[in-house]
Amino acid sequence: MNNSYPKGPRYTDLVASLPGTVPFVDPETQERGLGAVFKARLGANENVFGPSPKAVAAMQAADADLWMYGTADSFDLKNALAARYGIATENIVVGEGIDGLLGYLVRLLVTQGDRVVTSHGAYPTLNYHVAAYGGALVTVPFNGNYEDPAALVAKAAEVGAKLIYLANPDNPMGTVHDAATIQTAIEAVPNGSVLLLDEAYVEFAPIGTAVPFDTSDPRVIRMRTFSKAYGLAGVRVGYAIGHQGLIKSFDKIRNHFGLGRSGQIGALAAFEDQDYLAEVLAKVADARDRIARIATDNGLKPIPSATNFVTMNCGRDADFAAALVDDLTDRGVFIRRPFVAPYTRCIRVSAGRMQDLDVFEAALPIALKAII
Amino acid sequence: MNNSYPKGPRYTDLVASLPGTVPFVDPETQERGLGAVFKARLGANENVFGPSPKAVAAMQAADADLWMYGTADSFDLKNALAARYGIATENIVVGEGIDGLLGYLVRLLVTQGDRVVTSHGAYPTLNYHVAAYGGALVTVPFNGNYEDPAALVAKAAEVGAKLIYLANPDNPMGTVHDAATIQTAIEAVPNGSVLLLDEAYVEFAPIGTAVPFDTSDPRVIRMRTFSKAYGLAGVRVGYAIGHQGLIKSFDKIRNHFGLGRSGQIGALAAFEDQDYLAEVLAKVADARDRIARIATDNGLKPIPSATNFVTMNCGRDADFAAALVDDLTDRGVFIRRPFVAPYTRCIRVSAGRMQDLDVFEAALPIALKAII
Repeated sequence: MNNSYPKGPRYTDLVASLPGTVPFVDPETQERGLGAVFKARLGANENVFGPSPKAVAAMQAADADLWMYGTADSFDLKNALAARYGIATENIVVGEGIDGLLGYLVRLLVTQGDRVVTSHGAYPTLNYHVAAYGGALVTVPFNGNYEDPAALVAKAAEVGAKLIYLANPDNPMGTVHDAATIQTAIEAVPNGSVLLLDEAYVEFAPIGTAVPFDTSDPRVIRMRTFSKAYGLAGVRVGYAIGHQGLIKSFDKIRNHFGLGRSGQIGALAAFEDQDYLAEVLAKVADARDRIARIATDNGLKPIPSATNFVTMNCGRDADFAAALVDDLTDRGVFIRRPFVAPYTRCIRVSAGRMQDLDVFEAALPIALKAII
Repeated sequence: MNNSYPKGPRYTDLVASLPGTVPFVDPETQERGLGAVFKARLGANENVFGPSPKAVAAMQAADADLWMYGTADSFDLKNALAARYGIATENIVVGEGIDGLLGYLVRLLVTQGDRVVTSHGAYPTLNYHVAAYGGALVTVPFNGNYEDPAALVAKAAEVGAKLIYLANPDNPMGTVHDAATIQTAIEAVPNGSVLLLDEAYVEFAPIGTAVPFDTSDPRVIRMRTFSKAYGLAGVRVGYAIGHQGLIKSFDKIRNHFGLGRSGQIGALAAFEDQDYLAEVLAKVADARDRIARIATDNGLKPIPSATNFVTMNCGRDADFAAALVDDLTDRGVFIRRPFVAPYTRCIRVSAGRMQDLDVFEAALPIALKAII
């Protein structure tokens, strides 16, 4: 007792300096505020069309066996991924969604003062992890509605960044670069730096926008997920593909038994049902077209999307877009908008089913009139 | 490119110094080695009796909805916990199992060189997290088959530890201290230090061994799980209870959407089915008695257990116990043994169903004869 500390915890200096931020407010919290359930849940880019019925059946069959821990190495899932992609299991690590893997990757590379380059307005959870490990975020602007791969790697070289974040397709704008542009950026990654290529939405994008896998290249690590096209956000399974040395380093720090058994089983069954995936992709493409039409019909400007959402320019300022989101929320339509100017003038709507988009289509003109 | 680094990642100094350890080899990996499925899975202290049928039904009903992310704050589950325990939701954080919460707590408190006190031979995953954040582990010996609460806090005062780990009931020995002993230790926690009371097995222990909740005390944080008595290891849900300030600090660093929706739903349904829990506890008590009888019948010395496993002294050296584990493994019986001398002379057997213990009972005498 005879020390000078107060009773209770002594946080690390880094933790003591951190704000208590939460990257996103979830729709259930918004619903409690509203006192009602959303009529259309189109704000989190979830796959409203749901997972493969085969994945649902596999998970249901396994639910009574959930007294067993999940496996530490996701052996079956990694084998399926490796076989389809023509790579080795040693080039794959499975983790608790891309969010979890992002956290691990930042932790592997970044300590107090280390630089990370990303686009101003890109995925906030990356920024959250960088701050929480003491890293210094350096941003470059979007170029029009696109992330700017050449500018990102040039900035990384300039500031000596250890990590570069690039989402292709992008969120929140929904745009995509072709493979050649990405490959050029990879070739320009400075020594001592890794490009994190976030491909959460890759399944929705046109063929030819994803670069071929080259797991001999230590400059790039790619992350994909079962939360979007495979409709399994609720089981938290993502994976990273990269050079064997980098992939193996995750084993030094990850929560080895952090994956749920249900998620491992569901993800494998979903991945094996490529026919269902194709159906979902067709439905998402139709939904994107319809959202774009709804936008245009209401005087908003949709941005061509390679994802399962459409971001649209409301043609006014950020306050207007914010009011529109709030008004639609009050009408039971959950959507979001980009966090950073000038894109705060936009709203972002996830690809929904017919009935979801009926709700959106009916509510949008009323909301637009209400807030003018 | 004109820097002196090689192509690829620059790890933090800490990460570069870490070994690529894995805390446990999972039974599926062992099964692949054997080329067969275990006849009795009694090595990971899983609850072989399974989760509540109501939890199974709730999860099955939700499987088709797993396109939705889990909630960030586990609102419903925290409310149920708070109501039963008579505490506030602000005193609870739900996380990806105790393993996940352990990692977060270490990260909040421990940086390079900070001391953590634990028992020599206690939970290796704690040690894994401490090493991975650069902490220095200081151990005190068990006292007989018991952790030594007084020695742990005295050592913490001596070395200025920021964190003290104590499991009650204990793993791997299965012993428990009464509440008064724990309370005395809490009162002696030095300033600037937190006692992490791991209560993963608390539901199996006699009434009166858990101290009452006092969430005004910043010196102690308690962790509990749905992986053991509630039979939901496969969905990864645990929780920590403590002072509001410490609990809130988890929000600075945790993976806010790290919990599966299925797990949140299953855990809530399981927690609300206390009748089923009572049935399981009765079955576990019977299984413990039977394991103890089997041990005694075979000349081994069972240690009285307050958990869902029984650890037994084989009466010979560590090599003998290791050979016994290996031989039983080859016979399709998955068990483990403590990692640290002198307890490496013991084996640890989880409470199984009748059919599991039939397998163990038949195999044990044959294995004992085979290795002599």
